[in-house]
Amino acid sequence: MSDKPLADPMTAERIQELLDRSPFSRFFGIRVAAIDIPAATIVLAMELRPELERREGSGQWHGGALAGLIDTAGDFALALGLGAPVPTINFRVDYLRPAMTARLEATAKVRRAGRTVAIADIDVHDSEGRLVAIGRGTYGSQPG
Amino acid sequence: MSDKPLADPMTAERIQELLDRSPFSRFFGIRVAAIDIPAATIVLAMELRPELERREGSGQWHGGALAGLIDTAGDFALALGLGAPVPTINFRVDYLRPAMTARLEATAKVRRAGRTVAIADIDVHDSEGRLVAIGRGTYGSQPG
Amino acid sequence: MSDKPLADPMTAERIQELLDRSPFSRFFGIRVAAIDIPAATIVLAMELRPELERREGSGQWHGGALAGLIDTAGDFALALGLGAPVPTINFRVDYLRPAMTARLEATAKVRRAGRTVAIADIDVHDSEGRLVAIGRGTYGSQPG
Amino acid sequence: MSDKPLADPMTAERIQELLDRSPFSRFFGIRVAAIDIPAATIVLAMELRPELERREGSGQWHGGALAGLIDTAGDFALALGLGAPVPTINFRVDYLRPAMTARLEATAKVRRAGRTVAIADIDVHDSEGRLVAIGRGTYGSQPG
Repeated sequence: MSDKPLADPMTAERIQELLDRSPFSRFFGIRVAAIDIPAATIVLAMELRPELERREGSGQWHGGALAGLIDTAGDFALALGLGAPVPTINFRVDYLRPAMTARLEATAKVRRAGRTVAIADIDVHDSEGRLVAIGRGTYGSQPG
Repeated sequence: MSDKPLADPMTAERIQELLDRSPFSRFFGIRVAAIDIPAATIVLAMELRPELERREGSGQWHGGALAGLIDTAGDFALALGLGAPVPTINFRVDYLRPAMTARLEATAKVRRAGRTVAIADIDVHDSEGRLVAIGRGTYGSQPG
Repeated sequence: MSDKPLADPMTAERIQELLDRSPFSRFFGIRVAAIDIPAATIVLAMELRPELERREGSGQWHGGALAGLIDTAGDFALALGLGAPVPTINFRVDYLRPAMTARLEATAKVRRAGRTVAIADIDVHDSEGRLVAIGRGTYGSQPG
Repeated sequence: MSDKPLADPMTAERIQELLDRSPFSRFFGIRVAAIDIPAATIVLAMELRPELERREGSGQWHGGALAGLIDTAGDFALALGLGAPVPTINFRVDYLRPAMTARLEATAKVRRAGRTVAIADIDVHDSEGRLVAIGRGTYGSQPG
């Protein structure tokens, strides 16, 4: 399966289809919760599963799971405009609070899409609307 | 299960025991490959499993899996000196090459352990010794 | 001169006084343009001087000058609530466009002020309102 | 003055000439202390001047000055191979200790020079050899 851009205009369903091409995203259970194409913004959601806990039965997410969600959300905010995900060049994640929640929502917004690189910001909230982590990623600007 | 420090001196077996307390690390299959306590350095290894692929059957690791390994390796480099893992404050990961390999090795080294925060650098190599990603993380300096 | 917090409530004048304690900020000519204490937001401004150019007579700012402004703006967004600047632990700066402008404005906002560390986001605009750089910094949460 | 690459092989003198094209580097007084072309490593040095102090008469460097040195050192490590400085895409700086010293030395090493981006690591030591700050930067891979 390739990263070939989809010809048709982007919809939540098409983004979900692109996400589901990745076994990693499928295992994490990442779902498109909302898209706003003019605002270059996407919201992805994810439910806690036992393999993603920091400690058995703690109800707390492992930081690595948040990092995976953040990377993916930034990538798909860019895919809204580019038609397909792009390679991650680097990203930073800051953990603000322990994520003790059944469901996380990552809101990613494109800050700049240049000729060679693009940048997205990602805020992650728990199910009560508390900000638990923030991310900032640099991506290539060509699908591949 | 708690993050309570182990009383006895650190060995690869004890680090593995601490790692295995986390369902996330167990699912990823993170193994201690080597430790060097005077050098504040640890090597963790991980084999590709289907859920961690970027694309089905591609043999390429998803970036999120590398990020999880990097975060964990930095944390356990610090645990060598502190006796237990510490909370991640933030980290950065740079992807240098597509990771097309059956096995990854992350070498993490403490750069500075201060009173309130500690910093570790992490290099990730594929099974042919090519550098595929690098990380830099800031952690709290108290287990918890 | 110390970083002792000021006893009185924060005003733009007091922040300017704290800024002016630093020869670096004075040389850069950093000025408080606006503060919004309930929003934990500060705007600092800076005019191009010849020493801060990337190339002689180019009118383009050197990236190091933007980095200095970003670090300072994040710090003083935190000073609004803490009464004094705090040590920078780390920060990241992303350059989005060449900064060809007589005047820069950095808008810094606190994202989280925790017990041991605090995080601020900083957006830098040119005099035509274009976003030229963005920063994200982690600071200690105790003046010193 | 342009960033046009120099035709001849790189020497410390030529790197110094490229550095001196920038008013910012001249004002900071950045000097080439050593180059190692096969190792893709450069050492830049800088003496404290009053405008770069955090507090008047403190002898402590402002973090913004270290950030400017770090950005420049990473850039010129890349210039060793590319013949000219390249645009900074982003960088991160971590402060490990207060920099109370008359002289700083930044050692920058290329970690990867790819087709579209390049990455360098930078360690900054004080005059007693203590590590005071570390940087990691992503740069474009074409002079301009």
